[in-house]
Amino acid sequence: MYRLIKQEGRAKRGEFTTVHGVIQTPVFMNVGTVAAIKGAVSTADLEQIGTQVELSNTYHLHVRPGDRIIKQMGGLHKFMSWNKPILTDSGGFQVFSLAGLRKIKEEGVTFRSHIDGHKIFMGPEESMQIQSNLGSTIAMAFDECAPSKADRMYVQNSVERTTRWLQRCQVEMKRLNSLEDTVNPHQLLFGINQGAIYEDIRIEHAKRIAEMDLDGYAVGGLAVGETHEEMYHILDEVVPYLPVNKPTYLMGVGTPANILEGVERGVDFFDCVYPTRNGRHGHLYTNHGKINLFNAKYELDSRPIEEGCGCPACQRYSRAYIRHLLKAKEMLGMRLCVLHNLYFYNTMMTEIRDALDAGRFAEYKRHKLDSMATPLE
Amino acid sequence: MYRLIKQEGRAKRGEFTTVHGVIQTPVFMNVGTVAAIKGAVSTADLEQIGTQVELSNTYHLHVRPGDRIIKQMGGLHKFMSWNKPILTDSGGFQVFSLAGLRKIKEEGVTFRSHIDGHKIFMGPEESMQIQSNLGSTIAMAFDECAPSKADRMYVQNSVERTTRWLQRCQVEMKRLNSLEDTVNPHQLLFGINQGAIYEDIRIEHAKRIAEMDLDGYAVGGLAVGETHEEMYHILDEVVPYLPVNKPTYLMGVGTPANILEGVERGVDFFDCVYPTRNGRHGHLYTNHGKINLFNAKYELDSRPIEEGCGCPACQRYSRAYIRHLLKAKEMLGMRLCVLHNLYFYNTMMTEIRDALDAGRFAEYKRHKLDSMATPLE
Ligand SMILES: [Zn+2]
Ligand SMILES: [Zn+2]
Repeated sequence: MYRLIKQEGRAKRGEFTTVHGVIQTPVFMNVGTVAAIKGAVSTADLEQIGTQVELSNTYHLHVRPGDRIIKQMGGLHKFMSWNKPILTDSGGFQVFSLAGLRKIKEEGVTFRSHIDGHKIFMGPEESMQIQSNLGSTIAMAFDECAPSKADRMYVQNSVERTTRWLQRCQVEMKRLNSLEDTVNPHQLLFGINQGAIYEDIRIEHAKRIAEMDLDGYAVGGLAVGETHEEMYHILDEVVPYLPVNKPTYLMGVGTPANILEGVERGVDFFDCVYPTRNGRHGHLYTNHGKINLFNAKYELDSRPIEEGCGCPACQRYSRAYIRHLLKAKEMLGMRLCVLHNLYFYNTMMTEIRDALDAGRFAEYKRHKLDSMATPLE
Repeated sequence: MYRLIKQEGRAKRGEFTTVHGVIQTPVFMNVGTVAAIKGAVSTADLEQIGTQVELSNTYHLHVRPGDRIIKQMGGLHKFMSWNKPILTDSGGFQVFSLAGLRKIKEEGVTFRSHIDGHKIFMGPEESMQIQSNLGSTIAMAFDECAPSKADRMYVQNSVERTTRWLQRCQVEMKRLNSLEDTVNPHQLLFGINQGAIYEDIRIEHAKRIAEMDLDGYAVGGLAVGETHEEMYHILDEVVPYLPVNKPTYLMGVGTPANILEGVERGVDFFDCVYPTRNGRHGHLYTNHGKINLFNAKYELDSRPIEEGCGCPACQRYSRAYIRHLLKAKEMLGMRLCVLHNLYFYNTMMTEIRDALDAGRFAEYKRHKLDSMATPLE
């Protein structure tokens, strides 16, 4: 259950107790799409870099290795050897963005696997069943993430269907949690607010789902093409209609600056592939902005990626060495960069929580943004 | 310096003291071609899996990032953050097998870089200079590894030139070690016995180089196409002519069985890419033979790769999970497999040393070979 420890403006400092442990919020979830963080990062590594919540993708795990196999292996926690909280998405986002030709009906969506092209049907019940098989700590409701440029009528209809789907998710999860062989009978359900950039649709939808007493509420369908200002504006408008005594999750966001702005607007949970994806390309976050290790100026740079960083890469290896690994296409280079970037994000969240605890988040945010905008060289 | 602790038949149990620490022999060196073990394995990982000596490739590091850069970074130990012994090969093997069009003269070899095609000249002095820049613990002499099918006349001439090259290596290394800015003024030099499968040429050569009072002696040019029996025969004939009070190194060998046979014939040092290369392909060594994790029968196998194995993969992850990672092409799968395989090799060497200490190597070898030939399922 969520406990609101403190507020500073709309920013929330919370504590979310789950069957897999307590999550201190605001928190950044580390994305491990197919039950592994890309870049050869193991769950043992995650423990070293301060990860609180791992996020895996329902659609990917459904098509490979298959959620039934994971259930037979005792669920995702046991399968990937991670005993802290796991959040699974609903599969909806991938179904609508990654899978081939699809057909949306009231029942759900028919689409083709991106791996072998075979037909798959997924609706609210199927999504809940898959997530139940995975046994994640937090399951996400099955929704449609409408294109950010969709017209008003499309979005209105889509959001109404998403509400009906949410009701079906709630019913199905209740049923699944009560089954005898359920992996995690305490699985939690987060609903998702949609409505593209139509604030009135979003607000109506937020009010509607707020009444449903879910375990948490996400704002979905952002960071999909709209500007940062549009995203911040939507948060300004919508978050006040989501329950303050439940965790708020901004899906798929984002840069360190996006996260600071999100926290200010009351967001508890974040997730994003940036730190892992950028890390694999040698793009590294520091307190003085991003650096690109492929740059020739790092060829003889004996400093760590960032002075004072406590991550396993910076504790031991130089920019010059990691640059060499990246250029030689040695996997170790990617791994060290991903470890640094995730550690940077996780550490920023700790700093944010400390700042909220001390009632000086606004000051911290200003200082951090200034610092990140000021390269050292 | 090498101390022969014990012998059982020709098998040697030794201790080799270097400026970077003591090496207990027999030892298997873990191959990190470009200053990193392939499969995202870090030097921190190597410490966890009991690695005594890391081996890097002179040719690869000369072309990228460049040995002068590594010297400027304080040498290979500092560059890759590894404070135990490192052995570098001479570059000869790669020059003769990997590089493009080459021309061999008395001075050395002219060839083209496999990366950008630019012309490089390497002779004994250049090889020593590069290895001195790298500052490895043990440098290997620059030799020609003649094709195993080369005719007698070619091999005779090649070996004579290799002897002359060895003398030049010895002179050049002495000079380099005495320079003020040398990375490792205590760098050691191993000579290399050649002669293809002509045992009389090999024996003459072994006698000749044994007189040169080098820090160690390698048998090169084996495991390049000849049968295992031919290789064992050459060892039977040649090793007795190499100094028993110096370490003996069988280059590029091999399978666990090859290593057991090599130890029996007096070999102290081994190296091979098998555990890393096989690991990256999901082929895993166990005490009951190799297993291929891509096999469908491991889909729901909750056991570790090998029951009782103390490696970081087996301590925490199941066959089913690692198989899933390999199939999903997640780097973590390769990393876990490489860690297991290197741990298997390193552990076997510990077992071999323990058996030699207890005077029961013959028994251990028989038991180990029997066991590895007997699959569990
Ligand atoms: Zn770092
Ligand atoms: Zn193992």
